[in-house]
Amino acid sequence: MQYFEDTVIGARRELGSYTFTAERIKAFAGKFDPQPFHLDEEAGRKSLFGGLAASGWHTAAAWMRTAIDCRESEIAAAQARGADIAIGGPSPGFRNLKWPKPVLAGDTITYFTEVKAKRLSVSRPEWGLIFVLNTGVNQTGALVFSFDGSAFVPRRPTGE
Amino acid sequence: MQYFEDTVIGARRELGSYTFTAERIKAFAGKFDPQPFHLDEEAGRKSLFGGLAASGWHTAAAWMRTAIDCRESEIAAAQARGADIAIGGPSPGFRNLKWPKPVLAGDTITYFTEVKAKRLSVSRPEWGLIFVLNTGVNQTGALVFSFDGSAFVPRRPTGE
Repeated sequence: MQYFEDTVIGARRELGSYTFTAERIKAFAGKFDPQPFHLDEEAGRKSLFGGLAASGWHTAAAWMRTAIDCRESEIAAAQARGADIAIGGPSPGFRNLKWPKPVLAGDTITYFTEVKAKRLSVSRPEWGLIFVLNTGVNQTGALVFSFDGSAFVPRRPTGE
Repeated sequence: MQYFEDTVIGARRELGSYTFTAERIKAFAGKFDPQPFHLDEEAGRKSLFGGLAASGWHTAAAWMRTAIDCRESEIAAAQARGADIAIGGPSPGFRNLKWPKPVLAGDTITYFTEVKAKRLSVSRPEWGLIFVLNTGVNQTGALVFSFDGSAFVPRRPTGE
């Protein structure tokens, strides 16, 4: 993660991709969202989704997985070159979670994060806040997932 | 699900409960949120959560599970008494997802939904829109999860 001072508004990063196999869709839905169109191909085809569809919460959880994997890779790369690492703080929450199109069995979703705004924290002078738009796009380029996130980001230590 | 006309603003329903065992927390995190404080008791104790903590997306997915189970029970009960059943439409999305306190191993979260507002749909005359506040509360009564939801709800067929 970058320090607040190094975070550029407009910068867009690819976090990674996740393929929604029928097996993964059914395993998630069986535990958390047991609706017929998430569990059975035929029921999916007859539904307004037009096929076996992933639970929206599965699409969200897969975003988290790509975000964590991406961060781990960045930390490993920074350590390999002996660079300083900024560790992010907690997120105050998310807004405007949307699933504009269904995610169907076989789809591969690529997730992105884009910095939309940043400001200093009023309550915590050693932190800044960044505001990001997180998205998921399928293999045809269609937007299937988005939400607005925010997170505390450390300011660069003074004297460097 | 109730018809739009029968939906009462202020009505609050308990959807059900979900216990976050250490096993469930680790299984979810291993797939979708592999951060140390979601995977290991000792790492959790040393984190700002103070214990093995559930991924926020696990808390959200468990809300979905209780909501589906509750709806299934309502449909079965309505069928048993020969009553009419209203089938809900899609959700346009969610807002203001918040995790105000951590969910720790052993916690049982009870989920609620409360109707905050309703209006007729402009684009779909056979539907109304309801706006709800969904919450999750732990065994000590502390709020651990909330988001604002909205959903299309069918209007009662005319002539009844």
